[in-house]
Amino acid sequence: DTEKEFEAEDVPTTAVYTDNDLKASDVFLQRHLGTSGSSETAQMLDAAGGFTSFDQLIEATIPSNILNRECLSYRAAKSESEALERLRNIAKQNKKVKNLIGMGFSDTLTPQVIKRNMLENPSWYTAYTPYQAEISQGRLEMLLNFQTMVCDLTAMDISNASLLDESTAAAEGVNLAINSVKGKRRAIYVSDDVHPQTIDVVHTRCKDQGIDVTIGPAKDIPSKLAENPGKFAGTLVQYPNTYGQLNACDYDEIAEAVHSDSGLVISAVDLMSLTLLRPPSEWGADIAVGSAQRFGVPMGYGGPHAAFLATKSNFTRRIPGRVIGVSKDKHGAPALRMAMQTREQHIRRDKATSNICTAQALLANVAAAYAIYHGPEGLRQIASRTHAKTATLARMISAVNNDKLSAAPTQITSSNYPGNGLFRVASKPGEYFDTLKIDIVPDNPAKINADVVMDFAKRAGYNLRRIDDFSIGISVDECTTTEDLSNLAGIFRAVLRYGESRTAALAQKDDDAGSGSEFAIDYDSDLSDEEELSFDPRDWVHLATEISQRHQRPASSPYLTHEVFNRYHNETAMLRYLTTLASRDLTLAHSMIPLGSCTMKLNATSELDPMLWPEFTSMHPFAPREHAVGYREMMRELSDRLAEITGFAAVSFQPNSGAQGEYSGLRAIRSFLAARGEPHRNVCLIPASAHGTNPASAVMAGMKVVVVQNDPATGVMDEDDFNKKLHKHQDELGALMVTYPSTYGVFEDSIAEVVQRVHDAGGLVYMDGANMNAQCGLTSPGLIGADVCHLNLHKTFCIPHGGGGPGVGAIGVAAHLAPYLPGHSVTATGGHGHGTMKKNTDSIAATPYGSAMILPITWMYLEMLGSEGLRRATETAILNANYLAKRLSGHYKVAFSGKKRDRCPRIYRGFTALQTECAHY
Amino acid sequence: DTEKEFEAEDVPTTAVYTDNDLKASDVFLQRHLGTSGSSETAQMLDAAGGFTSFDQLIEATIPSNILNRECLSYRAAKSESEALERLRNIAKQNKKVKNLIGMGFSDTLTPQVIKRNMLENPSWYTAYTPYQAEISQGRLEMLLNFQTMVCDLTAMDISNASLLDESTAAAEGVNLAINSVKGKRRAIYVSDDVHPQTIDVVHTRCKDQGIDVTIGPAKDIPSKLAENPGKFAGTLVQYPNTYGQLNACDYDEIAEAVHSDSGLVISAVDLMSLTLLRPPSEWGADIAVGSAQRFGVPMGYGGPHAAFLATKSNFTRRIPGRVIGVSKDKHGAPALRMAMQTREQHIRRDKATSNICTAQALLANVAAAYAIYHGPEGLRQIASRTHAKTATLARMISAVNNDKLSAAPTQITSSNYPGNGLFRVASKPGEYFDTLKIDIVPDNPAKINADVVMDFAKRAGYNLRRIDDFSIGISVDECTTTEDLSNLAGIFRAVLRYGESRTAALAQKDDDAGSGSEFAIDYDSDLSDEEELSFDPRDWVHLATEISQRHQRPASSPYLTHEVFNRYHNETAMLRYLTTLASRDLTLAHSMIPLGSCTMKLNATSELDPMLWPEFTSMHPFAPREHAVGYREMMRELSDRLAEITGFAAVSFQPNSGAQGEYSGLRAIRSFLAARGEPHRNVCLIPASAHGTNPASAVMAGMKVVVVQNDPATGVMDEDDFNKKLHKHQDELGALMVTYPSTYGVFEDSIAEVVQRVHDAGGLVYMDGANMNAQCGLTSPGLIGADVCHLNLHKTFCIPHGGGGPGVGAIGVAAHLAPYLPGHSVTATGGHGHGTMKKNTDSIAATPYGSAMILPITWMYLEMLGSEGLRRATETAILNANYLAKRLSGHYKVAFSGKKRDRCPRIYRGFTALQTECAHY
Repeated sequence: DTEKEFEAEDVPTTAVYTDNDLKASDVFLQRHLGTSGSSETAQMLDAAGGFTSFDQLIEATIPSNILNRECLSYRAAKSESEALERLRNIAKQNKKVKNLIGMGFSDTLTPQVIKRNMLENPSWYTAYTPYQAEISQGRLEMLLNFQTMVCDLTAMDISNASLLDESTAAAEGVNLAINSVKGKRRAIYVSDDVHPQTIDVVHTRCKDQGIDVTIGPAKDIPSKLAENPGKFAGTLVQYPNTYGQLNACDYDEIAEAVHSDSGLVISAVDLMSLTLLRPPSEWGADIAVGSAQRFGVPMGYGGPHAAFLATKSNFTRRIPGRVIGVSKDKHGAPALRMAMQTREQHIRRDKATSNICTAQALLANVAAAYAIYHGPEGLRQIASRTHAKTATLARMISAVNNDKLSAAPTQITSSNYPGNGLFRVASKPGEYFDTLKIDIVPDNPAKINADVVMDFAKRAGYNLRRIDDFSIGISVDECTTTEDLSNLAGIFRAVLRYGESRTAALAQKDDDAGSGSEFAIDYDSDLSDEEELSFDPRDWVHLATEISQRHQRPASSPYLTHEVFNRYHNETAMLRYLTTLASRDLTLAHSMIPLGSCTMKLNATSELDPMLWPEFTSMHPFAPREHAVGYREMMRELSDRLAEITGFAAVSFQPNSGAQGEYSGLRAIRSFLAARGEPHRNVCLIPASAHGTNPASAVMAGMKVVVVQNDPATGVMDEDDFNKKLHKHQDELGALMVTYPSTYGVFEDSIAEVVQRVHDAGGLVYMDGANMNAQCGLTSPGLIGADVCHLNLHKTFCIPHGGGGPGVGAIGVAAHLAPYLPGHSVTATGGHGHGTMKKNTDSIAATPYGSAMILPITWMYLEMLGSEGLRRATETAILNANYLAKRLSGHYKVAFSGKKRDRCPRIYRGFTALQTECAHY
Repeated sequence: DTEKEFEAEDVPTTAVYTDNDLKASDVFLQRHLGTSGSSETAQMLDAAGGFTSFDQLIEATIPSNILNRECLSYRAAKSESEALERLRNIAKQNKKVKNLIGMGFSDTLTPQVIKRNMLENPSWYTAYTPYQAEISQGRLEMLLNFQTMVCDLTAMDISNASLLDESTAAAEGVNLAINSVKGKRRAIYVSDDVHPQTIDVVHTRCKDQGIDVTIGPAKDIPSKLAENPGKFAGTLVQYPNTYGQLNACDYDEIAEAVHSDSGLVISAVDLMSLTLLRPPSEWGADIAVGSAQRFGVPMGYGGPHAAFLATKSNFTRRIPGRVIGVSKDKHGAPALRMAMQTREQHIRRDKATSNICTAQALLANVAAAYAIYHGPEGLRQIASRTHAKTATLARMISAVNNDKLSAAPTQITSSNYPGNGLFRVASKPGEYFDTLKIDIVPDNPAKINADVVMDFAKRAGYNLRRIDDFSIGISVDECTTTEDLSNLAGIFRAVLRYGESRTAALAQKDDDAGSGSEFAIDYDSDLSDEEELSFDPRDWVHLATEISQRHQRPASSPYLTHEVFNRYHNETAMLRYLTTLASRDLTLAHSMIPLGSCTMKLNATSELDPMLWPEFTSMHPFAPREHAVGYREMMRELSDRLAEITGFAAVSFQPNSGAQGEYSGLRAIRSFLAARGEPHRNVCLIPASAHGTNPASAVMAGMKVVVVQNDPATGVMDEDDFNKKLHKHQDELGALMVTYPSTYGVFEDSIAEVVQRVHDAGGLVYMDGANMNAQCGLTSPGLIGADVCHLNLHKTFCIPHGGGGPGVGAIGVAAHLAPYLPGHSVTATGGHGHGTMKKNTDSIAATPYGSAMILPITWMYLEMLGSEGLRRATETAILNANYLAKRLSGHYKVAFSGKKRDRCPRIYRGFTALQTECAHY
């Protein structure tokens, strides 16, 4: 009875539902593609060449020897909410602690009004580089504000509108010196108390260009120059130095010595400290470089942040990157434009002195907005508070030694400063800004060393800097609270107490000293002692010392006096200023931006949202790996996916622009060739149609550029010229750099053959990934046989342009190049396809993973598309280009459409092709 | 030696730091006030009347008998980041589970592009009510889209541009029927399967107006009408009913019966279901009401959401609220405007048929954008998926009984449907949309009842609806996943297994049955059984039933055919549409909006950010209290602060607009008087200058309005007229409604005396809180002696206007009125100053705490100002008004400036005063 058929009339008979009807409703693919469904697609396929399916179109477009529609393993697409949920769970694995590591990265409060109305506002972040001044006046004004701010604080004459990071900015500064100082000097002196990551980047860049780098103490500079007159084009110093000290050398004396030798002084500076400190130009620096990160830009595990280079007016025409200037429109009214980019690659190609292209426009604009919101007085207060907290902490740590912490003294005595017990505050009163160096007495009976202190701190929720076995660095910032100061003092106290017990224990059992296991640290009990953590820093602040008179910024050097820095100090005013500027720009929030040189994609909100989650923003680039588990997991997955998409073995995220990607990719080739005993292979073949960055990057990597002509009729590389050059340079051939599909949008049939011939000739192939959008899921650089390619994640993989940056130029490499991916000296990198995890000094950017904070954008994009969606996106892009070419072909001549007349026009980026024929469209 | 003085020359001698230098840098007060510091303030004080301090100004402005600068206990201000951090910790106490409770509230996916570009975009949320059409075309277009969407889905002729919630919309529908049906019928029939909260609100409103409410089964309507011809003005039904059923009555038959009796049918509807169901107008409903919440608006513990009322064209001029219409500008081009608000209070005052004023413009716009983004086909798919998931779940739960869950059948048999074991799916196939009613066999041997099922579900992370002791409701929504379906089936299976074990145990020990403790539920073990949770709903979906033919929406009734619903289905297009509309409006993001009737405040980003945290958005209004601990903690604190600010004993957040606040405040007075044996005291004195809502609300509360004239010279209430009216109505005096400072901006000296005289005459005093901004921290309604006041949290306390809503009209009451604050029948309210926690049916809005989701805005405002900051904000507002009055006094006559000539002009809202003299400013 229970098994009998249910009465049919009671149940509707039509059961139309399928699995699909149980799925989430926020599927991403269609939201991304823009076409409105299968009937529209069918019409377009038909119009593009009588195709009835995507398969037909693709077979007619992509050469069959490189086409593989199954090149991605199957991964289901996640809906928007599912992908966000998954990423949230990954992000949660990041540990949120206070990072007082310093080294150029400080926690900062992004004013909410700036976060919401710039960083979360598509009218700011989707803008393209302001090549068209008439639709960019808002951004240009804010970039001009950035330049004004940097000029004012450094007291320099001119600044550019941002560089990638402090370390590459320092390298650009060195470059400027090398190219400006008369007498072709090819050497540079770098002070050893510059941030280590900066020394590394400078060292890498100089090595490639054959510039000699001498590293030594800053205070030795005068004597070194005297010993080697006319040798050094310049010296690089840091002010205050990497340990926070102002008294490790005499900056005036250094500058005088360098100038006597006709060299230039490049100084890395902390922009915030300059609100209180004598600006570098006043003690004689010629070039100031640094980062504006702590001006409201989250640390984000390393970037993106805006760096800068400011200098004297006599070097104006040598400044790398972009400079915004005040000009006039045709009616004579003031208007802004990109006034100078004279050093840029697209003008001088292999004669360029830098390959810099992408800047950090969005972050520069955030930093400028931060300065505008706070104003000169507000910034000064932030800096003063930071210094007061630092000085208070110095007093408290000193007092720990003497067990005097619980009762704050009313005056400074040697018992509360500078410390004469286990810990010595190495930073001298008045001679630091925000960073303390704390030395531990070596060989102390309790065997306390830096690791013990770091461990206690980490357990209490603080990451400090381990300078060496017996030195700790602590950098205080805008976000440090009185509770933090109290906790930090408590940590040192707990270590001291632990040391006392340990000494006693060790005295008892003399020969157990080595094992350590006999006396395990009981962190919980040592740190939870209420007395330890109850010191009130407010009792100590009256003892804090001001910065010494001789380092103080003089009243004769005012800053941020322009009206713009003095008008918008309440939230309403700031909001209206940001809204007004946004209304002067044309962005993807308003319309299509029909520039052919970049694949402008939807920057979906779901992709953009995660990067500002607190789990991602507050991570220091040098935080312990176990605190960044979420970041690492996200990057591991992303790396796997990009490796599969490119057909390569390993991926590096360190390059923070496409040009940096090119540079590091070519470096990998050079290193590989050198390891194989062929360091002489230094010729780089580059087609004439290549983007100007290619030759500039090749030169930076120490290569010799040989140009291959293009066939003017088809746009493809001229076969005869290629053969000629290949033959001629066979013995010194290092690499071919090739864009695929070509810059003219053509899938060249011969690509696989070209690659093979370069390999046969002993060279490697660098594929420029600018046009990867036409390959994803259908072919890949790996399939084609290339050895390395870079990916513009800020184009092809949905990171927005930000009005001219940030960018990520991740590179993928075949297995034989994996060991030569860029490393880092502060944090071990590698593993996961790169070979062993280790530290090395071959870095090309300040932080191990470049602009890690924006990688979730690409992660979300790939997660929401899945493998089939990604392929469909590529097919749709190819369809769009071919459709457009066909529809316009009656009215315009399509310039380049592949060699064989009997096949469909192979136009990928339709507009570029059309542009060649017709300047107006 | 260690104690000797430290060498002075080594340490800078100037220690200038104070406690303040250790504080956070994101202090809120100055960002809020807008003045640029103490020197500007000093100048303004001087210009305003030669004052040298705020104290002087305030003493000259506020009558001394009500001034108390110490009326707030000290609370330190938190910085922006500190306040956010604190609220984050509070919010974390909310438990995020899946809410399948239904009853008119469903979880929904807010499309990210809409969230970021409308809900988080000040150009949308800071707009004022679109009284000025020329600066409101963007919002007006989106509101018109909302109306079009509602009209299309209900197939009605006209809709308004949103109401407060479904329950008040139903009450407005009843009102419309009462006022439209000929023959002055004063009775209404309400089906007992309307959502209980709607029945309550209708009941409350009808009771106050002397309308008779009969509640009974829907299916009895034809017979009831036949028994009482000409009695009922209308009937209110729900479609589908509150249990999700379409077959509890015959809607066509009901409509026919009502129409035969010349009455009107009001139907509450589920807008999403109407994409699949026959629209209400087609079976004969005259008025459709409902909520658009599930169109992308978060549940937010009850609101804000946009409700609607749609009807036939013959009732056009009787529609409550605002109707947007297409008009022409002076050039004849199409333009939008608020076309009708004929029922609104500011025109008809005590003749108005509704006091509705604030709408839910922002939420209506989100709902319209959701419909535009998805389009007709997208909405239909969302609804279909929701139904398919529901029908699949029904099959799975049925199969639980027969232990047939693990192997999905290939056809429907009585063994898998409808269930003949412990659980019966009471919902008949094809006769529901998204909600199932599951009955439990009563008196089952294991004593399983609804509470046991609810408990199992809660532990597994699901909130269901407890309909009665042996019935459970489950409402499926857009966010329900296949995993949820599998878990839900698993829950029922676990209950069944538990029942089997329990039956066995009970059989063994017969007399232990009552205790329960003998057989405690082991949820973890019962729910974690892997087999239980591994049923794959995809195996079951093919058995899902479509909605029965007779309920299906016919093809002849298409919807959302207008181009606007068919153009913006990809994210780029949607973003551009939203950006374009925003660019047509003038908002606080662009400039000041100089309308006198509201205190427009900074809507700070830090205040706005938390409301969209997932911890706040996804909470169902009827979620168990223990899941809403964060919400309750936040509301408890906010309630304490507002009580202190108003000088009252208790606060209710239920009123979701200022007018609702007035209504509930007056209801409290009426209830108190009735309880004291004076139900006849029903006269409400209202000054002529009062906002039109006052008399309309008084009428709604069943009171008789008596107008007191104003002195045309001073703007204050005419003393003689007041005395006259007071004397005349002494025996029936219920209340005086008074705005303070007055609508003309004057602090009337006599206020305390006036209040005393009303009390002496046996009446109570209702203070309109529209001008509380001039009182906070300096005086209060409680100090002045009033009994109740409402607070426009959307004006005085920083909730943005949203282009015409949302609003919160919280009311504060003195202790004797606390027991008469609105309650709720679904969730017990009260406690914390309101008397015992209990359920009652005196609710005036759909949800117990009204628009709870936006209360964090006010919480943040007060947390960031602290007590001193709040007072300073008030002082600054008074300074601004007086400064303006003084500076303009040479050019304009200041209309009302207090009675005594020798004191400073007491103009609080300067613009109102000036406006009176000069129409153009």
